[in-house]
Order: sequence, then structure tokens, then C-alpha cells
Amino acid sequence: MSDPLADVLAALDRDRPAALERLFEWLRIPSISMEPKAAADCARAADWCVDQLCGLGFAATARPSLSHPMVVGHRKSKTLGAPHVLFYGHYDVQPPEPLELWTRPPFEPHIASDARNGEMIVARGASDDKGQVMTFLDAVRGWIAATGDVPLTLTVLIEGDEEADSGPLAAFLRDNAAELTADLALVCDSGAWDHKRPAITVSLRGFAGAEITVSGPNRDLHSGLYGGIAINPIRVLTALLAGLHGHDGRVQIPGFYDGIAEPSADTRARWQQLGFDPAAYLEAVGVTRASGEAGRDLLELIWARPTAEINGIWGGYQGPGSKTVIPAQASAKVSFRLVPGQDPAAVLASFERYLRARLPVDCGLSITPSDGSRGIAFDPGTPYIAVAVAALAGEWGAAPALIGSGGSIPVVSALKDALGMDALMIGFSQDDDREHAPNEKYNVESLVRGTRSWARVIGGMAPRT
Amino acid sequence: MSDPLADVLAALDRDRPAALERLFEWLRIPSISMEPKAAADCARAADWCVDQLCGLGFAATARPSLSHPMVVGHRKSKTLGAPHVLFYGHYDVQPPEPLELWTRPPFEPHIASDARNGEMIVARGASDDKGQVMTFLDAVRGWIAATGDVPLTLTVLIEGDEEADSGPLAAFLRDNAAELTADLALVCDSGAWDHKRPAITVSLRGFAGAEITVSGPNRDLHSGLYGGIAINPIRVLTALLAGLHGHDGRVQIPGFYDGIAEPSADTRARWQQLGFDPAAYLEAVGVTRASGEAGRDLLELIWARPTAEINGIWGGYQGPGSKTVIPAQASAKVSFRLVPGQDPAAVLASFERYLRARLPVDCGLSITPSDGSRGIAFDPGTPYIAVAVAALAGEWGAAPALIGSGGSIPVVSALKDALGMDALMIGFSQDDDREHAPNEKYNVESLVRGTRSWARVIGGMAPRT
Repeated sequence: MSDPLADVLAALDRDRPAALERLFEWLRIPSISMEPKAAADCARAADWCVDQLCGLGFAATARPSLSHPMVVGHRKSKTLGAPHVLFYGHYDVQPPEPLELWTRPPFEPHIASDARNGEMIVARGASDDKGQVMTFLDAVRGWIAATGDVPLTLTVLIEGDEEADSGPLAAFLRDNAAELTADLALVCDSGAWDHKRPAITVSLRGFAGAEITVSGPNRDLHSGLYGGIAINPIRVLTALLAGLHGHDGRVQIPGFYDGIAEPSADTRARWQQLGFDPAAYLEAVGVTRASGEAGRDLLELIWARPTAEINGIWGGYQGPGSKTVIPAQASAKVSFRLVPGQDPAAVLASFERYLRARLPVDCGLSITPSDGSRGIAFDPGTPYIAVAVAALAGEWGAAPALIGSGGSIPVVSALKDALGMDALMIGFSQDDDREHAPNEKYNVESLVRGTRSWARVIGGMAPRT
Repeated sequence: MSDPLADVLAALDRDRPAALERLFEWLRIPSISMEPKAAADCARAADWCVDQLCGLGFAATARPSLSHPMVVGHRKSKTLGAPHVLFYGHYDVQPPEPLELWTRPPFEPHIASDARNGEMIVARGASDDKGQVMTFLDAVRGWIAATGDVPLTLTVLIEGDEEADSGPLAAFLRDNAAELTADLALVCDSGAWDHKRPAITVSLRGFAGAEITVSGPNRDLHSGLYGGIAINPIRVLTALLAGLHGHDGRVQIPGFYDGIAEPSADTRARWQQLGFDPAAYLEAVGVTRASGEAGRDLLELIWARPTAEINGIWGGYQGPGSKTVIPAQASAKVSFRLVPGQDPAAVLASFERYLRARLPVDCGLSITPSDGSRGIAFDPGTPYIAVAVAALAGEWGAAPALIGSGGSIPVVSALKDALGMDALMIGFSQDDDREHAPNEKYNVESLVRGTRSWARVIGGMAPRT
């Protein structure tokens, strides 16, 4: 039998206009998992996935979860000895606010273009993660169109809570372990190295987060009558948060860095060879200097060091003019990016101890934790990575970078913890995709070559006949 | 001629039900000066004042200002040698938010009652300042009803921007100095000492305020990709604000306390005699300890020491769940209560220098100042205070306390600066009136005995025949 890959790639190229229209259809569904009013839209986005999978010959359903539905589909390969892989993605998206910064409404996808990126698909979720999921689904479609089969037995899991800490995911994996366990997971929620070079992500930071509220007086007070007297929860909150970082940028929570290993010499050498330009990375977002731990390289800070960030803060009067109030409470959202060796629950417990030890008299503190995930680091020397390296190099004409990611993909640690599975993380987003921000985009090239890349990876994983 | 005061007081007592209905009518107008959408309501509240004044024989109009209308009315006394006084009040009110904490809608006034206060008028503006203004207007009404005249020549000025820093007031006073200058100003926007003892306010704190915005990255960033790298404006803002106070509670802005005099021995002795209960004052708002400068008495902290307070803060994601964003900017509203010796503009300039000196690289800072006012302290030994002391003692059976106020009444410093006038500050609000907070109230007793008190003050100021 001749290698069918050329036919598959040709089929994909012919299918491009239809592929774009399918993605647009999905992007028009405002599946904002954190927005309670969007529950019906999330269900609609899940049903859309089920329809797609069924059209590709999967036995697929949208299963109820504690939050939004879980889409699960299975497709058995006709190929003898076909490996079984689990593909994971998510159909939910970040809230689009602030809306006024979008050049067009976030759920009306359109094509824009610029010199750097060429044509781009602009919409909330274009890159994170609908566009990325489509690269895999369309690769499957290409294999079926060209050969009538996919040489891998496939399980697809598309969740709807990734942007809401993947709340129901870990329990869902545990409850359906027998059904979902495969030889390897494929995850498409990460980035390319740059416009010319793909990437395989071999490490991820974990996550721990909490909303904290400091309370003080028993009601909002007039700052004329009580200023200088009654404790101001905003003042207390700012003091607590300002103390989170030392002058050297290090997180001041006792024990925060315990158990963290320094990168190996091999890892440092691999990073060194990437030709990363720290100044350009910073300049792209309008800063000149890394604000994190002093004395560490930028890639190390992003990929291998934990952080504490204040993602939101609010309290008192925020409207026009002045309202001289001492509010009864003030709140903030704080999150931590974690690396291997840190336990999310232990970090949050230390954070709470840190806060309570510094809380002045007359103040209360409440903490609402989010679900967390551990940092992950895979051995870059395993065979499935060699297969993926060859496949990506074939498509892009450049060896993929083996990189870390500063972001968190909760499913990867959940797959490891619940099912004992490793994950191959390949994705095609670019640094300037504005994920989580206004005017999120996904390059048309990411979509096209991403799809072709997965088609090659599938071919590479097929049993040799 | 017999003393007509008994007839005036009897007329007021007969008018009580109608007086309450008039106040309710005014309270139903949601004249929120800081709310741009409420401009028509502010104009309506001003017109309501004009109608009231015209009904009392004033020549009154609502004059355009740079913001909401200024109500001005004049009424010449038939009494030979009648002094000329300017009465000042404001028809605008604070925003009512948070609405969910009101037991009934803020602009549907109703009567409630409890053991401590007896009957209470509950509505936004009941105490600050519509109820207080009504005590004076109704005292005038009583004099006219009983005698056909008021033994003082009256100018009434009711502004609509007091809760928005009295923006247009100073210029209005300067532009109309000849028309508005009188022998003395009467201001009814302050409190009684307690439920049994009235008060004359002889000192006020001044005010300076600003909204500050710290900017960092050129757009909102994903904290996975940029956490530990890009400067987080919330972190910078919390550090700047946390540094405003030292561990001893003192404001750390260089020069902040320059030029401030310590209270005289006489003043301290006067405070000592008030029988003030610091623990009860704190307990009423749910705290056990003063949070201001260490080593100073509570009354001194409120009346004679300056403060810095954070009245509002916001930045990043504030909705449900977590959004792992590093926002492009974060903001806060900061205000200062000032005492004599401090200049509002100089304090804001020092504040800005303080912020800029501590601003990290890659951050921007914008500051929008509010109009300020100086702290005021009148000599409690002047003759008009003696007249008022006697009048209030006659009504309440207890000598009024000569007190300070921690709040700011911008008009008092503006009257002094623009027209060279002193102000007699008498008011009848209680500490638990919840001004600027949900369920604001004004005791019916404050309204009734406040009105009778002004009637006596007017009589006391009349020329002796």
C-alpha cells in the first residue's frame, strides 16, 4: 500500500473554504463558561461538536456534568494494530469583556489581515480553543475523505469548563476511566514557537487561584465621620497584596518555593538553542523589563518558575466623581502559576495562613478557592515525541521547538493523575493571538498548516505495515 | 411688643403633618448629582426649592451653573435693623448604591421606628441634606405664619453639587459676591452631639481627592504567558497604596503634616468635657480599635488630624469564576481629610510626587484631582455663637456641645475665601443616620426640634427692640 498522506493533504487543501465556514459557525456560539446566562450557549456549542463528530463516523454524545456538558466520541479504526489516542479540546471561551475594545463584536467572526500574520480569524475563541480543536477534527476529516478510515482508534473529549478551572473534569475522568483511557492523549491548546517554526510543549505550569474578601466595619461608612478611625478594608487588602512580592520579585509566602527543582543543564541547553529574543517578547506588550524574580532568564521565568498574580481587585466606589466612603469590604482574585514540586492545595493553604497572620484586628477574611492543577514536565526523549517531531518538520520544513508553557492546561495533569496518561501537546497559536483579551485571533495559516500537521502526526502514529 | 416666639413655635407644631409631606415630596426626587442620567431630576429638585421659596415670599430663581442649577432666593425683612444672613444647603444626594441593601427603595421615603430613635424618615437624602434644609425653611414658614415677617433679611443658596465636590460653587460665589455677601452664613449640614444634646460645629476638616490610574502592559495579557514577566498594574497600585500609611498609622507622603498645629489646651479641655465614649463610637460600626495615627484620642483623630483614605479600587476581572488576566491598568479613588494649615492643592501635588517617585519602570500614572477645600476652625468665643448657644439650650434643655466635624463642607471654606464670611454650623443629624450608606434616615425628632431650634435662633438674632 502506498503512503496515503499525499491524498489526505490534497483532500484537506480542497476542503479549506468549507473548513473555515465550519469554524465560523462554531465561533458564533458565545459559549462563555463563566457566564451563568450562557449555559444554553454552552450546551449549543457542545451539541455542535456532537454533530461534527457524528458526521465523522464517531459514536458521540454530550454528557451531563456538574457544570457544562462533556462531549465524548469514539471511533474505532479499521487498521490492524491501530494505537488508541484520546484527543482533548474545549469548546468554552473566556468572557469577552471589555467589549468596547473589540473592533467588531466578539462573536461575529471575520477575516482581517496584517503584514505579520497574513489573514487572521478574529473572534473570541478563535485561538483558544475552537480554532485549535478544528485543526484536529479536520485532519480526521481529511483521512476519512482520502482513505475511508483513520489509522488510529480515536476517543475525543471536548469539555466546556476549561476557562472556568475545568471544575467537573477530574471527577469525569475518574468516573469514566475505563472508557477514556487510551495509549496517549493529544492536546491542542498550546502555541507554535513562531510563525515559521512549530512547537511541542513538554512542560506546563500548574494553577491555584482564590477570591479573597477582606471585611471591616459592619457597613459602608462616611470617610468624614470615620476616616482615620474605622479600619478601611481596601487599605488592608492593598497591604496584604502588596506584601505578596519582595523587592527581588520573589513571592513572600513562606514555603512557596519549597520542593522546586532548578532546570537541568540539558533543559537550559535546549532553551539556549531556541534563539529566543527576550527584549522583543517584552516589547510586544509594551514593557522593557521582566517584573518577576530577579536574576533569572525570561524563558525560565515563564516556563519553570512559579508566580503570584492579582487578576482582579474591587471595593468601594468606582463610578464617576468621588464618593467618600469607607467600604465594609474589598475583594481580589489572586492566582498562582505552579511548577512541578508544588501542590495547588498546599499553596492555597500557605496563602491563607500568610493572609490570616497579617490580618489586622477588626477585619474578617473569606477565601474561595478555585480548582487547581499541578505543574507538568514530560521527558522529551520518549518515542511519541520523536514521531511528532518528524511529522511537524515535514509540514513546516523546520524542526519543532521543544518548549515549556507558562500557562496551565488542567486536563494534562488530570489525565496524568486520573488515567496515568501522558499527553502530546501540539498547538499552532501565536504569541500575538490575544487569547483572553479583546480582538483574539487565529491565523488562517495556523488553521491550514495545523490541520495538515495533525494529518501528518496521525500518519506517523499509524502502525507500519 | 411681646416676644412672638411662642406663637411661632405653636404655628410650627400645628404645621407638622404638612411639613412631613413637603419633605417626602422633595425626597422622592432622585437628585443624584454624580449620576449624569439624573440631570433632569436635579433640575426638578432645584425647581421644587424655587417653588417653596417663592411660596415663602422670596424672590427666587434656579440659576444655571457649570453643573446643576444653583437656587438663590432673597427675602427682605420689614424689621428695622434686621441682620442679613445667608442660609446654605444642598438639594443633591449621594448615589444610593448598593441598592440591594435598602429595605425599601431609596427614593420612596417612609416612616420607620426603633427604640433608640423613635420615628425616622428613611430615604436617600433624608438627613443629608434635604431634611436638614427643611428645618430652616420651615422655621421661616413658622415666623411668617405667626408674625407675617421674618426678623432677619434672608438670602438662601441651595446648591446641587455638594456630593460632587461642589464643583461650580466657588466660582458662583465669586461671580455673585455682591449679591450673596451677608453678615453671617447659616449652614445646616452637620450633626447633633447625641439624641439629647444639640451641637454647634466650630471646626471642619477640609478635603482633597483624586482618581489615580496605573497603566502597565499595552493590553490585557494572559497570566500564563506573561505572569512573572509583564508588570501587573494591580500589583503596582496595591504597593503604592499600601505604602500610604506607616505601621503607626501616619500618612507617609513627605510633608503631609507640615504646618498643622496641635489642639490648644482650651480645645482639649472642651473635648474632655463632652463625655465622649470612644468604645461605643467604634462598637457602633463593628470595630474595636481606631486605625488612624497611634497615640491620639479618637476625637482628635476625627476632628483635628488629617487622613488618607482609599474610597474605591478596581482593576482586572471582577466577575464570577477566575479570569487569569494581567490587566493593562488599575485605578483607585483616594481622598484626604485636611485640617487648618494644609492646602488641598499642595497635598495633591505631594501625593503625585510620592506616587511618581515610587512608580516602577514600564508603568504610567494618570491623576484626576477633585476640587478641594481647606480645613476650617472658628473661634468659639464670637457673639453669634453665644446667641445660638442660648437658642439651642432653650429648645433642648441642654447646652449645645461646641464640636468639630471630621467631614468637609466645601461651602464653608468657599464662603470664607470668596466672601470673607464666617458660618454658623448647626445641624440635627445623628451619628446613626447612615449618611452616604443604605437606609439613610433622619429622625422625626431631628426635623421637629430642628425646625423649632432655627425658629429660636432667628428670634435670637433679631434686633432687640
